[in-house]
Amino acid sequence: MPYFDAASAAPLHPVARQALLAALDEGWADPARLHREGRRARLLLDAAREAAAEAVGCRPDELSFTSSGTRAVHSGISGALAGRRRVGRHLTVSAVEHSSVLHSAADHESRGGTVTEVPVDRSGAVDPAAYGAALREDTALACLQSANHEVGTVQPVAEVAGLCREAGVPLLVDAAQSLGLEPVPGGWSLLAASAHKWGGPAGVGLLAVRKGVRFAVQGPADERESGRAAGFEDIPAIVAAAASLRAVRAEAAAESVRLSALVDRIRSRVPVLVPDVEVVGDPVRRLPHLVTFSCLYVDGETLLHELDRAGFSVSSGSSCTSSTLTPSHVLKAMGVLSEGNVRVSLPAGTTEEDVDRFLDVLPGAVAGVREKLGAPAAAASAAPAASLVVDALGRRCPIPVIELAKVIGGVPVGGTVTVLSDDEAARLDIPAWCAMREQEYVGEEPADRGSAYVVRRLS
Amino acid sequence: MPYFDAASAAPLHPVARQALLAALDEGWADPARLHREGRRARLLLDAAREAAAEAVGCRPDELSFTSSGTRAVHSGISGALAGRRRVGRHLTVSAVEHSSVLHSAADHESRGGTVTEVPVDRSGAVDPAAYGAALREDTALACLQSANHEVGTVQPVAEVAGLCREAGVPLLVDAAQSLGLEPVPGGWSLLAASAHKWGGPAGVGLLAVRKGVRFAVQGPADERESGRAAGFEDIPAIVAAAASLRAVRAEAAAESVRLSALVDRIRSRVPVLVPDVEVVGDPVRRLPHLVTFSCLYVDGETLLHELDRAGFSVSSGSSCTSSTLTPSHVLKAMGVLSEGNVRVSLPAGTTEEDVDRFLDVLPGAVAGVREKLGAPAAAASAAPAASLVVDALGRRCPIPVIELAKVIGGVPVGGTVTVLSDDEAARLDIPAWCAMREQEYVGEEPADRGSAYVVRRLS
Repeated sequence: MPYFDAASAAPLHPVARQALLAALDEGWADPARLHREGRRARLLLDAAREAAAEAVGCRPDELSFTSSGTRAVHSGISGALAGRRRVGRHLTVSAVEHSSVLHSAADHESRGGTVTEVPVDRSGAVDPAAYGAALREDTALACLQSANHEVGTVQPVAEVAGLCREAGVPLLVDAAQSLGLEPVPGGWSLLAASAHKWGGPAGVGLLAVRKGVRFAVQGPADERESGRAAGFEDIPAIVAAAASLRAVRAEAAAESVRLSALVDRIRSRVPVLVPDVEVVGDPVRRLPHLVTFSCLYVDGETLLHELDRAGFSVSSGSSCTSSTLTPSHVLKAMGVLSEGNVRVSLPAGTTEEDVDRFLDVLPGAVAGVREKLGAPAAAASAAPAASLVVDALGRRCPIPVIELAKVIGGVPVGGTVTVLSDDEAARLDIPAWCAMREQEYVGEEPADRGSAYVVRRLS
Repeated sequence: MPYFDAASAAPLHPVARQALLAALDEGWADPARLHREGRRARLLLDAAREAAAEAVGCRPDELSFTSSGTRAVHSGISGALAGRRRVGRHLTVSAVEHSSVLHSAADHESRGGTVTEVPVDRSGAVDPAAYGAALREDTALACLQSANHEVGTVQPVAEVAGLCREAGVPLLVDAAQSLGLEPVPGGWSLLAASAHKWGGPAGVGLLAVRKGVRFAVQGPADERESGRAAGFEDIPAIVAAAASLRAVRAEAAAESVRLSALVDRIRSRVPVLVPDVEVVGDPVRRLPHLVTFSCLYVDGETLLHELDRAGFSVSSGSSCTSSTLTPSHVLKAMGVLSEGNVRVSLPAGTTEEDVDRFLDVLPGAVAGVREKLGAPAAAASAAPAASLVVDALGRRCPIPVIELAKVIGGVPVGGTVTVLSDDEAARLDIPAWCAMREQEYVGEEPADRGSAYVVRRLS
């Protein structure tokens, strides 16, 4: 039963499991105590910190273990912002950061700070020059992920780090998706990561803060982990995290090449096997194990269930798979289609056969969902009219786009279709459909309820 | 090798270990995902929440799993204070709360809030009437531990909860030391606890917030655990925490009676076996497994090392065993001796033989430390003088008290000894020595360096 959602959480690596079991007996006591059980726990904690610091590329005393990657990001951002409050209260982030970064930014704004979101291109990458231009006199901190968690695009961290250094702004790199593969190139000031992304246990994050970076811990004081991660350390999990990071890194070079070839196969075969599909993210500067594509006229949740029934566990950035009914902010920032979105992220050890079976199953699964939704199989033909209005109010993604596709053949070339929709995903998916179909997206107008999206038929 | 520091961290309960191992294979995926691995993780998380909620005595949707007891306290206090900001910004705590509560209170003060610390009596208990009197019109939250972590004294939670209810103030109970033994009596509004205190794994805390309690989560938004505990859930540890809480509770009634008898033996034998010892904490209203005593003229760190060499792991609230060089705030608030302090907290399964061996070893260990430090074996006699000054500047606990004891016999009854000391512990220990020795503590005066502590010989 292939699990293709390693970017959410990787299964526990055998080395992590082994280290965790050993440390359960040795590392349960309070490492702040002077007795032998405490000293034993302290030794394990110190050894884990040295191993993890070496993998990160920092000094052991620069590294704190947090309870999650999210906590590492929250503490890193709040501490760095407070440490440079005298410089100013401006924060720069990319538009495609993990929600833990964007929620920290929103929290900062709610306390009177200012935030600039640097946009990305259609591949999901920031332009270093644009990022550099967003740095200001009063910028206290800049954040950039090492690679995107939804589409796999690798960010130009070294270039951005150079610009940050020139501007005298510390850079926090969220390395959650890449730290198991390779160290982040030098030049960062703070780094955050999460063990369960590389096959370590849940409950362990890393926060590295370079010596010399101004940092003022926020919230109630706590003496553990240099004051940067309140609460009793989970030493067995920390030991397992550090041990598995070393193990995963040792395997990464060979495994990355292998997985990257499998992802290339998916990237090239999916558009051939499935009509009306858009493979997103940078095809070259990307994570080795991750690929994302969107299928027109498909409801992401139903497609996930179809694939799940066929034995494949994947994830999706479609609005219909989230509790908020808004599409992924990453796909939105890239301006690509969000409906019928599927993210495939291969864990270590994924076989060629697993991938081939997935490619066998996918076309039928997509076709089945499209059939259920009554999606247009080919361009529809009907009596021509100069313009049409489609009322898709109250209907959710992907229905508005399906309705648009059904009727576009019914207006002459040069005529328009106006789609009335109150679904948040339509704002992203109607322009994306136009780009894919080479029709003209005229624009959006306010309507009584929701919006009116106007499309001109070009072909 | 008996481990007598269960109040810091209990060894992993066999049920916790078993549950953790089983859940490592079933509970590593993201419970927010729709695929089978995600659904399986969600089922485990839901079942653990139901089991833990039953043990706490709340509804499952009132309970969040945090990454530690400290985090549960931090989030509980900040959320409850923010939720009632309109009422006011006053916080009431007892003077002997865990540092996570007192640090939260200090953080609240640093942001402009006000805090009242309700004092305790010499046994370490708050007086309900005094606690009630500290509740004000603008009190947003009150905090009281179920039992003290350093001396074992049980607090009058039900009485204080009643007074809080009358005053319309929510009460947060820190139940870290007692939740493995029994549920906290009803009437609380928020409850915090920590799994590694009851034999669960590290990395799991509980925060219960009763429906109807105004609560506004602070910090960056996060959708997990009702928004009250940011970061990816550590489901294997959560499962182990819930399973072991049930197991520990089932064993608690019988085990508590047994351990309580062992503690009674320590409480009654120690003052007989060791001269100049003060057993602190309430002898009756106390945790079953915990007893604390202080030994005059003894350096806590050296005593801990002696006991450790003899195979006994205990803890201490003496200043010389902490990085801050200040004595335990609990002993300070009780006004009892802090030097040579030893906390014995028995884990489940402690045998009578272990305790008897401890009672065999202790007198020699204390005598050895006293000998090394040159402590007075009996009242010294010297040529009488009306008053003496002892310069103990730059010397740490227990030297100032030892010097005082050495010379007090050298002044006539009615004469005074003035001890010059810049050690923080002297402020607590010199008055405590006077109380134990029935000498008069005249008071403290500022000196060029440190303070001058004046003692009058009465006998």
